[in-house]
Amino acid sequence: MKNYIKHDPWKIIEEGFHRDHNRISESIFSIGNGRMGQRANFEEHFSGDTLQGNYVAGVYYPDKTRVGWWKNGYPEYFAKVLNAANWVGIDFLIDGEQLDLAKCEVDDFYRVLDMQKGYLERRFEATLASGKIVKVKAVRFCSIVDDEVGAIRYSITPMNFSGPFELTASIDADVMNEDSNYDEKFWVSIAEEVDHQEAYLTAETKKTAFQVCTGMHLDIVRGGETIDFETTHLKREKYVACNTTVEVAEGQELVIYKYAANLSSENHPKAELITNCRNVITQAVNKGFDQLLQEQAEAWMAKWEESDITIEGDVAAQQGIRFNIFQLYQTYTGEDERLNIGPKGFTGEKYGGSTYWDTEAYCFPFYLSTADQRVARNLLIYRYKHLQRAIENAEKLGFKDGAALYPMVTMNGEECHNEWEITFEEIHRNGAIAYAIYDYIRYTGDKSYLVDYGTEVLIAISRFWSQRVHFSSRRGQYVMHGVTGPNEYENNVNNNWYTNYIARWCLSYTLEAIEHMQTNSPEAWKALEEKIKFYEHTETKRWKDIVEKMYLPYDEELDIYVQHDGFLDKEWELTINDLTPEQRPINQKWSWDRILRSVFIKQADVLQGLYFFEDEFDVETLRRNFLFYEPRTVHESSLSPCVHVVQAVVLGMYDKAYEMYLRTARLDLDDYNNDTEDGCHITSMAGTWMAVIKGFAGMRIKNDRLYFNPIIPERWEGYNFKVRFRGNLLKVQVQQSGTLITHEAGEPLEVQIGDQVRSIQPSEEVSV
Amino acid sequence: MKNYIKHDPWKIIEEGFHRDHNRISESIFSIGNGRMGQRANFEEHFSGDTLQGNYVAGVYYPDKTRVGWWKNGYPEYFAKVLNAANWVGIDFLIDGEQLDLAKCEVDDFYRVLDMQKGYLERRFEATLASGKIVKVKAVRFCSIVDDEVGAIRYSITPMNFSGPFELTASIDADVMNEDSNYDEKFWVSIAEEVDHQEAYLTAETKKTAFQVCTGMHLDIVRGGETIDFETTHLKREKYVACNTTVEVAEGQELVIYKYAANLSSENHPKAELITNCRNVITQAVNKGFDQLLQEQAEAWMAKWEESDITIEGDVAAQQGIRFNIFQLYQTYTGEDERLNIGPKGFTGEKYGGSTYWDTEAYCFPFYLSTADQRVARNLLIYRYKHLQRAIENAEKLGFKDGAALYPMVTMNGEECHNEWEITFEEIHRNGAIAYAIYDYIRYTGDKSYLVDYGTEVLIAISRFWSQRVHFSSRRGQYVMHGVTGPNEYENNVNNNWYTNYIARWCLSYTLEAIEHMQTNSPEAWKALEEKIKFYEHTETKRWKDIVEKMYLPYDEELDIYVQHDGFLDKEWELTINDLTPEQRPINQKWSWDRILRSVFIKQADVLQGLYFFEDEFDVETLRRNFLFYEPRTVHESSLSPCVHVVQAVVLGMYDKAYEMYLRTARLDLDDYNNDTEDGCHITSMAGTWMAVIKGFAGMRIKNDRLYFNPIIPERWEGYNFKVRFRGNLLKVQVQQSGTLITHEAGEPLEVQIGDQVRSIQPSEEVSV
Repeated sequence: MKNYIKHDPWKIIEEGFHRDHNRISESIFSIGNGRMGQRANFEEHFSGDTLQGNYVAGVYYPDKTRVGWWKNGYPEYFAKVLNAANWVGIDFLIDGEQLDLAKCEVDDFYRVLDMQKGYLERRFEATLASGKIVKVKAVRFCSIVDDEVGAIRYSITPMNFSGPFELTASIDADVMNEDSNYDEKFWVSIAEEVDHQEAYLTAETKKTAFQVCTGMHLDIVRGGETIDFETTHLKREKYVACNTTVEVAEGQELVIYKYAANLSSENHPKAELITNCRNVITQAVNKGFDQLLQEQAEAWMAKWEESDITIEGDVAAQQGIRFNIFQLYQTYTGEDERLNIGPKGFTGEKYGGSTYWDTEAYCFPFYLSTADQRVARNLLIYRYKHLQRAIENAEKLGFKDGAALYPMVTMNGEECHNEWEITFEEIHRNGAIAYAIYDYIRYTGDKSYLVDYGTEVLIAISRFWSQRVHFSSRRGQYVMHGVTGPNEYENNVNNNWYTNYIARWCLSYTLEAIEHMQTNSPEAWKALEEKIKFYEHTETKRWKDIVEKMYLPYDEELDIYVQHDGFLDKEWELTINDLTPEQRPINQKWSWDRILRSVFIKQADVLQGLYFFEDEFDVETLRRNFLFYEPRTVHESSLSPCVHVVQAVVLGMYDKAYEMYLRTARLDLDDYNNDTEDGCHITSMAGTWMAVIKGFAGMRIKNDRLYFNPIIPERWEGYNFKVRFRGNLLKVQVQQSGTLITHEAGEPLEVQIGDQVRSIQPSEEVSV
Repeated sequence: MKNYIKHDPWKIIEEGFHRDHNRISESIFSIGNGRMGQRANFEEHFSGDTLQGNYVAGVYYPDKTRVGWWKNGYPEYFAKVLNAANWVGIDFLIDGEQLDLAKCEVDDFYRVLDMQKGYLERRFEATLASGKIVKVKAVRFCSIVDDEVGAIRYSITPMNFSGPFELTASIDADVMNEDSNYDEKFWVSIAEEVDHQEAYLTAETKKTAFQVCTGMHLDIVRGGETIDFETTHLKREKYVACNTTVEVAEGQELVIYKYAANLSSENHPKAELITNCRNVITQAVNKGFDQLLQEQAEAWMAKWEESDITIEGDVAAQQGIRFNIFQLYQTYTGEDERLNIGPKGFTGEKYGGSTYWDTEAYCFPFYLSTADQRVARNLLIYRYKHLQRAIENAEKLGFKDGAALYPMVTMNGEECHNEWEITFEEIHRNGAIAYAIYDYIRYTGDKSYLVDYGTEVLIAISRFWSQRVHFSSRRGQYVMHGVTGPNEYENNVNNNWYTNYIARWCLSYTLEAIEHMQTNSPEAWKALEEKIKFYEHTETKRWKDIVEKMYLPYDEELDIYVQHDGFLDKEWELTINDLTPEQRPINQKWSWDRILRSVFIKQADVLQGLYFFEDEFDVETLRRNFLFYEPRTVHESSLSPCVHVVQAVVLGMYDKAYEMYLRTARLDLDDYNNDTEDGCHITSMAGTWMAVIKGFAGMRIKNDRLYFNPIIPERWEGYNFKVRFRGNLLKVQVQQSGTLITHEAGEPLEVQIGDQVRSIQPSEEVSV
């Protein structure tokens, strides 16, 4: 855990240059716009420790997997987020001496990520070996208005000398992924062009043949005046740059404007990439840096207007929650249903593929409540479009007749994870994907989704469950063997309660969905039935039988659900209080053998089910299970604490809730798990939102109405947030004196706060 | 399954060139002498499909492992048998045209492995593209008398032309392992020397720095007369060769003698390697090919004299059992306690490391009964010498206080396997290592081994078990979670009956061993107690408690031991009769997911325990378990059938016994599992011996006496074999008319045949 980030409600601030934490800062100060993004690498050359990272959404590479021992059914490739052309580079030779913060004395270093306005700024004074001092201020951003555009304003001033500044502004696609399995570079050159103050580079990915054209335009202002300059053109494979030398007088400010564009063949015909890239550059240059930045600030402020959470009386918490919301929207804007939310977003390359069950289980509610419902729908459509691949994935494992197993990790719908205990066994992901459909419809009321897409996905998932269980003659019940639950510290267990429960729920819900279609859209149903060769009498008969006879492990003595068969045969009397600090985190300190056999739980497992299906259990049941499982949970997944916050609040365990909240809220800002250098935990950031809104504010859908039951953590004075609900925008202010709900836009609706149901008109405020 | 190998009692014969099976033949016709060995690659250039393989015992390389997802405790390296310098190469340019069987018409091809005399011969007539015909006969062997020496006699005769024969005799260390993880070559050059008709090449392994010097000497005989010849010297990194051209007249025989030597720095100081290699070569040349071959034949015939099994009335069975005995002695002679029995011996590189539990569980009884007891003792000493490494291996997993976990796969004592479900979980191997100590003492009566080495190993193993189990408060018994039994088609199970049983047995036997030492060698015990800081009161108290309260899964309804918790929750009503032929072998046809969840068993698991501890169960218990488990066993490990033969005989199920015997006896000769191309299944070959001697002949140790209870498989007329027992050599002839035991050498002793105990004097025969 580190504490070098300054607390501020709207800004992420590093004061003083923390060389040893540079990779961490690069992650935290990352910028992105859903279409592209990058780590906060320096513009000027830096020979110190750095992880270069530039990413273009949707552009991936199927790296050949490395796996010690092959199992039938493993995928051969692991689709990876690709490190793409670096367009930020502006190197300086100052009177022949290179500007490199690794080799200078650095004073007054100040780095700030302005979340309110969406830009990154860095200032410092560098003393070169020669004693020459320069003062720098660099501002850059990825535009969320023109999402193919990025821009840099790099200001440099000689403080104690005059002399020539040789600068090289480059685009460098000769990059590689640090996690490349075979130290391979994934890009091949298509075209390099340099023309005076502009340069264009087109590169293509191997195998997948995505093309990305990256362009740049250079303007130079000296002492407040735009100057003409000659450039030397540097061009080699996968690298283009403009080089020029400018005489600068002591105290005179030299400003480099670098406009960049990233265009992908996913969005443009390959033949038109470069032409379109020139146009995008031209438009950006015409607007100019200041206007681009102003549009950026306005757009971000508009986003905040609808999705901000304010926390009164706790700046650290305020900063934490805003950072998480900011990074989520930098990663995924919901504009493009081909995209999804990578676990590291644009802040790192770890975990390869873009889509995990994190999306449905953790991120989905955030987008559902803070963005237009089209965004959540796009996340569902993403999976709908992958349905055929999920069916093929199941076929590879021996399933048939249209059963679908969605992949554990994917880019394009194909599985690209390869540990058998995860790939083949952590199948509860199928449940989360079905649950998101339910969640969407429950929240939006948009039942047309069931008819148009949802039921088809649900049936394929139910077909999988139906084949995946078997009837145990000994128990007289259906059982499910060989699974890994959300708690990945147990592998290949039988009858994981959560998996069995969500499988049974999927079958039930699918039966409901079918009935809904039969009743309300009989023709659509008939068409679907034919399309997927649905055999109602045999298939639904078995499903109903499974729903009725699914085995769900339960212990009478403790009166709890049992995580899986044999769990209570462990040394379950132990709790995390029996662990010494030296033993934690156990995933770093213990052998896998020991972890597997221990009672300790990585993340919510039974409790994940109780969170999803809270309504189906009474509070005392929730309490008994929480009191049993939470003290045995080490929360070594960033996805764990948020679920516990929500439940602890329901159980009135507010201290526990706040303790859990703290573990998620500033996970990356404080580098809680010592791994932020690899990138930020984007998907778990939604968990913080969930902790506040579903946790402290108790937001639910009850009886088709938005419901709140707010509490205020002790350290806070109050908090405010906005939610969208069925075309309406509500502002919720939770104060010591009561809760105030303002209907900011939409139609009249009823909301429930605690046990009070209140009608609320547009522009009206109600307080409870 | 293939059937191209001709049946013959003493010879392995391929008639006609089976190009498509060349890799299989290369495996089957492999030669070796325990110190070095090689696949039956052709001497002359061959551009067709081939797996080059030359191996030097004890020389390995720790290849960096490739594993998709790392687990704490994994080894970083996988020690591999190394493909070493190829010394067989003799290439021919015949009047400028290369002799290459892939590009010729090949007639009268005949390859024979003479097992009785220990050499490989190959004859053929090749028609080159030009129409030129040559007749070739090549003989080669690895001497078991001078085990650093190999020799080739290569005869070639032009049948329809006269002309120049340009020949190149080489040593080529520029080789690589086909299974190299990073396509890396493992040898670096130390020295290349060529001097007229001799060449020497010294190469060193990366990392491990083993040096091997390979030398060769060339003699040429034309038309019956040794000729002088000039050579051109070819030398490049890791390659040396002598090249010369000889005019040969039509019908004239040209004979190339190539003497080779392989000296390893394991046996010679590095500085003396080349000098010693020259000496070895000189001695071999002085002896000459014919004498070397004659000594080879005599030595092999002497080996057969003591270890042969003859089967009357079944040539295929006869050939099969001799092939297995031959390959076992080619692989391991027992001369060097640093060596062990690799699963592929010198016939291939698959499975990397040399030592698995196969050695103790399957090979040990073979060497114990057919060789001097020093050989079996050397196999035990091998593990004793690795004890410290086994303790370190356990420490890496979190065990302490001298607990030892022997590795699953090893070369030098370090673990080099990396699948968590095997590395961390298939811990029953520890039991087999303890059992071999027991087996050795039971058979030899040599209790001094317990005092000198055995008890120390047993205590370390017991310390492991004692820490590996935990007390289940629910059961009131000790349980063992997270293991993989011998049936590797189940992973990470709880309470594998076999593992729990052998763990309990280890603890009991260790307590006995300690008592033996305390009573008989109190001083040695005291020294050991201090050396290993043994705390008798606490340690043995816990062990006794575990022995008393170990949980062993048992099912009352079926009255059988249960393979592991939850096994009967599967669809156990299925048997292999429910599998269609298309589904088998399931390890090729099914996904790993499906295999894991199925009831089907890879190899003896509960039955492995009943085989080891037969005396502790009544026949009806053996029968019930056999009748339950065998029909669910797919025998997809080559180690499976032999154990079932032994038990089926005990149960009077002779047809089943013979069916199982057939699956093991000609496994490689008939390429039963379609994988002989990778090498032969050396360790499972001992299973065939076991099937005959412990199975059909019913050999046991009972009441400290050798015991037989022979039956004769229906298709056989009878069979004969020899066993060594406590310094005695017995010949056993099992005939329809009865069993005849001849005491060939040693002291008077008692043997038991069925229920009759008979005294037998040296040179006496008894018949029953």
